[in-house]
Amino acid sequence: MKKALITGVTGFAGSYLADELLENGYEVSGTYLSEESIANLSNKDRVRLHKIDLLDEKATFDLIEKEKPDYLFHLAALTSPRASFDNPKETFVNNVSGELNILEAVKKLGLKDMRILIISSAEVYGAVSKEDLPMDENTPFKPSNPYAVSKIAQDFLGLQYYLSEKLQIVRVRPFNHIGPRQSPQFVVSAFAKRIVGIENGNEKVMKVGNLSSRRDFTSVIDIVKAYRLALEKGEAGEVYNLGSGKSYAISEILDMLLKMAKGTIEVEQDPNLVKTADDAELLCDYSKFKSLTGWEPQIPIEKTLQDTLDYWRNQN
Amino acid sequence: MKKALITGVTGFAGSYLADELLENGYEVSGTYLSEESIANLSNKDRVRLHKIDLLDEKATFDLIEKEKPDYLFHLAALTSPRASFDNPKETFVNNVSGELNILEAVKKLGLKDMRILIISSAEVYGAVSKEDLPMDENTPFKPSNPYAVSKIAQDFLGLQYYLSEKLQIVRVRPFNHIGPRQSPQFVVSAFAKRIVGIENGNEKVMKVGNLSSRRDFTSVIDIVKAYRLALEKGEAGEVYNLGSGKSYAISEILDMLLKMAKGTIEVEQDPNLVKTADDAELLCDYSKFKSLTGWEPQIPIEKTLQDTLDYWRNQN
Repeated sequence: MKKALITGVTGFAGSYLADELLENGYEVSGTYLSEESIANLSNKDRVRLHKIDLLDEKATFDLIEKEKPDYLFHLAALTSPRASFDNPKETFVNNVSGELNILEAVKKLGLKDMRILIISSAEVYGAVSKEDLPMDENTPFKPSNPYAVSKIAQDFLGLQYYLSEKLQIVRVRPFNHIGPRQSPQFVVSAFAKRIVGIENGNEKVMKVGNLSSRRDFTSVIDIVKAYRLALEKGEAGEVYNLGSGKSYAISEILDMLLKMAKGTIEVEQDPNLVKTADDAELLCDYSKFKSLTGWEPQIPIEKTLQDTLDYWRNQN
Repeated sequence: MKKALITGVTGFAGSYLADELLENGYEVSGTYLSEESIANLSNKDRVRLHKIDLLDEKATFDLIEKEKPDYLFHLAALTSPRASFDNPKETFVNNVSGELNILEAVKKLGLKDMRILIISSAEVYGAVSKEDLPMDENTPFKPSNPYAVSKIAQDFLGLQYYLSEKLQIVRVRPFNHIGPRQSPQFVVSAFAKRIVGIENGNEKVMKVGNLSSRRDFTSVIDIVKAYRLALEKGEAGEVYNLGSGKSYAISEILDMLLKMAKGTIEVEQDPNLVKTADDAELLCDYSKFKSLTGWEPQIPIEKTLQDTLDYWRNQN
């Protein structure tokens, strides 16, 4: 039985990845920070949980020495592009130091066979020009928020520890992924939560920010399947884009959700909700990963939007 | 009179840049950390000195608010690729946090006309394949030490604050630069210092590491001239490679220095001095910067090597 360790196992993607790995016969352990987040795990009795802050170098070392996983999925990170404008240093120190504590531990313990997944982001590409769409792994980087730069750093640290320490590191650059349990810091969850608030009479009007930018959305369930395949079949030292290859305007997403809503909902533009330097369009070319693993997203966006809306309905 | 602020003004490149700017009619201020380092300044009475750690967010903000320079040259950094293997986190936190404290201060103070130079490094390209030589600004990154990744982060933070905050940031990627006062952590200074040690009878044999890798060396005097031109003529948002366009094997550098030495010097290979994942060759294509500014390195390598050797002779 292969042993997998997921950092941030109680997070949005982490909790889905735990299920994906359990279903595929892995023994799963993971790190978390807050007790409340454990509720995100549908199989918490089957996951060995460690309450560990990855900024704690010694605790991280001890964990890896103890668990010695075959596969290490490093998901824990500060993940909000928008929040990173307010705390760029915290975003950087968290995302880079956590990874460094892990990679240094693996290096010092000499665990050269451990396969490690580093989660980069489509945000590294940022404000690409229309001619550069869709974005493949060689699209030049034009990061437009501090989170994106922290992911560039995480991404190239992964490459560097492969090149100089021969660690078995695979990197992925996921595009937007969505589903139940995602934080309402992110657009689809924010829309769904507010629609439910209006359905319940708690809010009157739906205030929205920039609706013209386009994003490539994939169900989190398809994305975590790709994470598993990336460590099972990916080449160490390589990086893979993960997305759907289809982009939607934020306004189209909103329209789909509004059609699923009970009653008619009034929408109002709020200039305060418009991000600085919002990227016009993110669109994924995932052919490199597809030709290696056969992976393609399976779940239609309508189903994921419906599931997300139902999730917020059940929160009340 | 244009006002320039140099972070790390008493460092190797910083001290030469102070002279370059004074000669070109600038009013110069700068930050430093240790009293001893002030001895590096040939014109210390003409430079307004601030003893400030750039990791101190408030002190950095207060400095920029007080000086409000027209040009800010951000040179302060941990600069040793080799040392970064032993302290990757310190290298990262120093290099990224210092820059973030500066850029956040400029952003919060609304100094949208200040021109800011971010010093990246040729190390970002790292272990490129022979087909990718010489390296231009689009050569893919293959960083082979943590320092190199910290410079990738600094580089793209510069681009990001240009894209999202409209700060007037120019980036440069200097290749190896050499000259008197450089730390003996770097190969040419290390060779020169040890040759002088042998000339003085303090050492017997010259121990050397990997001599086969090739580097593109430029006099520090030519490099700091390029830094000045980069802020005077460079385009905000752009990045420029700076180097000589000529590479030498480390063994050739050693041979040139040995010919300048007094007496015959015995050389011995020491495997402990060989770096992990040493890059085979760095070779600069600086045509982008040349076509914009007319800049080309002027000082022959033999003169810089001789000056460096003489510097170490005068230290005794």
